Amino acid sequence: MTLTAQQISDAIGAALEGDSGLEVNGINSPEKAGAHDLIYVDADKHLGRAQGSAALCVVVSEAASLTGKTMLRSTQPKLAFAKAAARLAGPRTIATGIHPSAVVSPLADISPTAGIGPFAVIGENVHIGDSAQIGAHTVVEAACWIGDGCRIHPQVTLYAGTRLGNRVEIHSGAVIGADGFGYVHGEGRYWKFPQAGVVEIGDDVEIGANTTIDRGSLDDTRIAEGVKLDNLVHIGHNCQIGSHTVIAALSGVSGSCSFGKNVVIGGQAGFGEQCHLEDGAVIGGQSGVLGGKTIRTGQVVWGTPARSLDKFKQQHAWQQRLPELAARIQELERKVDNK
Amino acid sequence: MTLTAQQISDAIGAALEGDSGLEVNGINSPEKAGAHDLIYVDADKHLGRAQGSAALCVVVSEAASLTGKTMLRSTQPKLAFAKAAARLAGPRTIATGIHPSAVVSPLADISPTAGIGPFAVIGENVHIGDSAQIGAHTVVEAACWIGDGCRIHPQVTLYAGTRLGNRVEIHSGAVIGADGFGYVHGEGRYWKFPQAGVVEIGDDVEIGANTTIDRGSLDDTRIAEGVKLDNLVHIGHNCQIGSHTVIAALSGVSGSCSFGKNVVIGGQAGFGEQCHLEDGAVIGGQSGVLGGKTIRTGQVVWGTPARSLDKFKQQHAWQQRLPELAARIQELERKVDNK
Amino acid sequence: MTLTAQQISDAIGAALEGDSGLEVNGINSPEKAGAHDLIYVDADKHLGRAQGSAALCVVVSEAASLTGKTMLRSTQPKLAFAKAAARLAGPRTIATGIHPSAVVSPLADISPTAGIGPFAVIGENVHIGDSAQIGAHTVVEAACWIGDGCRIHPQVTLYAGTRLGNRVEIHSGAVIGADGFGYVHGEGRYWKFPQAGVVEIGDDVEIGANTTIDRGSLDDTRIAEGVKLDNLVHIGHNCQIGSHTVIAALSGVSGSCSFGKNVVIGGQAGFGEQCHLEDGAVIGGQSGVLGGKTIRTGQVVWGTPARSLDKFKQQHAWQQRLPELAARIQELERKVDNK
Repeated sequence: MTLTAQQISDAIGAALEGDSGLEVNGINSPEKAGAHDLIYVDADKHLGRAQGSAALCVVVSEAASLTGKTMLRSTQPKLAFAKAAARLAGPRTIATGIHPSAVVSPLADISPTAGIGPFAVIGENVHIGDSAQIGAHTVVEAACWIGDGCRIHPQVTLYAGTRLGNRVEIHSGAVIGADGFGYVHGEGRYWKFPQAGVVEIGDDVEIGANTTIDRGSLDDTRIAEGVKLDNLVHIGHNCQIGSHTVIAALSGVSGSCSFGKNVVIGGQAGFGEQCHLEDGAVIGGQSGVLGGKTIRTGQVVWGTPARSLDKFKQQHAWQQRLPELAARIQELERKVDNK
Repeated sequence: MTLTAQQISDAIGAALEGDSGLEVNGINSPEKAGAHDLIYVDADKHLGRAQGSAALCVVVSEAASLTGKTMLRSTQPKLAFAKAAARLAGPRTIATGIHPSAVVSPLADISPTAGIGPFAVIGENVHIGDSAQIGAHTVVEAACWIGDGCRIHPQVTLYAGTRLGNRVEIHSGAVIGADGFGYVHGEGRYWKFPQAGVVEIGDDVEIGANTTIDRGSLDDTRIAEGVKLDNLVHIGHNCQIGSHTVIAALSGVSGSCSFGKNVVIGGQAGFGEQCHLEDGAVIGGQSGVLGGKTIRTGQVVWGTPARSLDKFKQQHAWQQRLPELAARIQELERKVDNK
Repeated sequence: MTLTAQQISDAIGAALEGDSGLEVNGINSPEKAGAHDLIYVDADKHLGRAQGSAALCVVVSEAASLTGKTMLRSTQPKLAFAKAAARLAGPRTIATGIHPSAVVSPLADISPTAGIGPFAVIGENVHIGDSAQIGAHTVVEAACWIGDGCRIHPQVTLYAGTRLGNRVEIHSGAVIGADGFGYVHGEGRYWKFPQAGVVEIGDDVEIGANTTIDRGSLDDTRIAEGVKLDNLVHIGHNCQIGSHTVIAALSGVSGSCSFGKNVVIGGQAGFGEQCHLEDGAVIGGQSGVLGGKTIRTGQVVWGTPARSLDKFKQQHAWQQRLPELAARIQELERKVDNK
């Protein structure tokens, strides 16, 4: 889409300096940008990259100085750029209309503005909301609810009864609602414990490629609004993930964990059953939180078992001094024993 | 399905106390249950939840006391409940009949009682047993054997020659039989080592969503009966996994490992090549067992490199005391040097 | 394919000893081999297995001694065997011709020698090169480039604009080009940062099952020639992976990392944003390299945070001696205080 600098400025609440009528029709990095691409710079050390760019319009901080550019000044240039990008280069279309090869149950309730790609399978009593898009090969089992504006990429599987809010985006290969890993051991084997709950996902959640979220066993698994899950994340049955929490790739959350709002979790972190993370907890990459533990609001933890970052750093420093401590012990022994 | 309390009692070997004719038609948690749902309680602290539930029929321990409920007493209430649940709320149907959109080789041998979903692809010389169900979009390459009663959810891939026993359940996105990660380095590049074996999976195995099990290179990869694999698990080529072993999510097993029976493995554990776990070994979450190592029967290990849980705890405790030890060394130095 | 011992010998540059006309038509392990299978042995301790095998033709080292066998002598028997195997038992066919059920855009440019399996979806302006094979259910979105001889197994997803070199092999469930995990936090929520770059993959790359490689945000993600990625690996947006680098299963690489050539990475290793690995760096399994760190050429690192293997071993040894050090401190205190 083509917008003028003035239109972008108005849309993102930036202060315009320069040519208000300048036409902008894309976004890019400073090096790859053409004259009509929008770029941004949020650190003084990158100002030279912006100055040297072919781009004529730059989102900058309030104090930045560039010559010959139309500047959109913002207190948060990266955020302002992200908002502008959503208008200039909105998301790619996944599907428009209902592809004739799709298998759609006559008992499904599909908005006339929804799109469904080739070979998609839509089960009985599924609801698909306005402007929702379902990619090629995606399977939506019976009784799923897909809210307005959802974007489901190709090859996603939604098991029966999964409920998505509005504007949920799910990347390829994600599996939502598979049976949880619940068994009872007895008589020398494992007996399947019922996995009869569902998965409920709130508005504006984004789920990465090949991520898995298991259905609840007797209760439900819930992902609150605004949560962002990276690729290859595992969320176990009955978990409750609070709003605007982010979880990086390859992290694994065992069953019945409850996470608060605005939690931040690094990659490959692991959580035993029934962990509780309070609002705003921060978990370092590869950390392991033992089952049943609580991490308090504002705590930053690292390592396995997870401890406060300060403690982790201190212990790590002492560990590296172990050879020195041992040498000092030896020296003391020499002195004491020689007396 | 609707059963009487007496019928359930008989089926699961529980002692009935109360209304033998009471009709039960589902399972649930105490809080969500209606009058005709079955619930269970296996710890005294949860008795209040059961007493307060609308459910009229409860599986309880031998000593538990509830009023106004029909009780099914068992020494293992959770196990008894799981068995009852399998009868009251059996697994959801994946597919019935052969969907006209499926591409089925005329050379496949398919039981008339098997079900095959939309867009499934069944290759040459595939065998699909009685009552087996193949989900939408699942690809079964040539010469696979799928035993009776298997449940293959949508979007699974079985590479050529994969063999499943009876009652195997495989969740969406799992890939069985892809080439193992085997190369020979020479002349400045990696040459593919042949991956010509297959994957054999025993009876009653369950495989989680997006889990991968690689085919053997010259020998075969084998998963014995009753094994349960969680989501996003990786099993390398030529591994031998013993019966009734369970492996939690995101664990990775390198090539040519051999695991005994009844092994228990936590999430995100890792195993180098040619590890050997004896029967009943227990591996903590995020532990790392180095290639070629053996973990003995009954051992419980943690950490990387994996050591006995007792040793891990002891070392962890000492680690936390390092600042104190250092202070004591300093104090000794002061005393000795001041003399 | 059937070849004579002489033909194999010529093809792999081995020295033939025995029956040059012996016909060989497959490869196998010594135990499973028939008379006309080729086997190999690269360690003296396995010579007995080769001697006892039914196979008549064996790839061996220059000094090995076997009786009654036709021997193909090589300085690198395993490499020579791998090269022979590629000729005797080349890769299985994935697809020949264009299956009538495939949905192929009339604007796609497809070589007449390419194969496309059932239900594959090929978008606008896609190029598919000579002899490339696209498996059943694979989705190739618009403007992808697939070079000559590529082998894409079933159920792969290539997001729009993905570019593959020649002879790239991608296993089932892999997702190439999904949006990177990039957000800007502001006003109490996360805003999606544009993910507008693509993924470029070089010649002779192999990508494991269910692996994910994210598209670049403003720049592109690049995997250089000869890279081998195992199953369930995650590569974040904007990463640059150098040629002939290998990454084992379940490893996770955060955004904007740059890896040199011939890097070797064990399973479940993790990398923070903007790590830099120089050519030939070696990263142990489960190691964690913190964001922004550099690992030098030839360094072998272990642990989290990653340190040199020597240091790791030393620290690990000292850790195990902590109880002893504490006892020695106590003994010193006794002696010093009793004076």
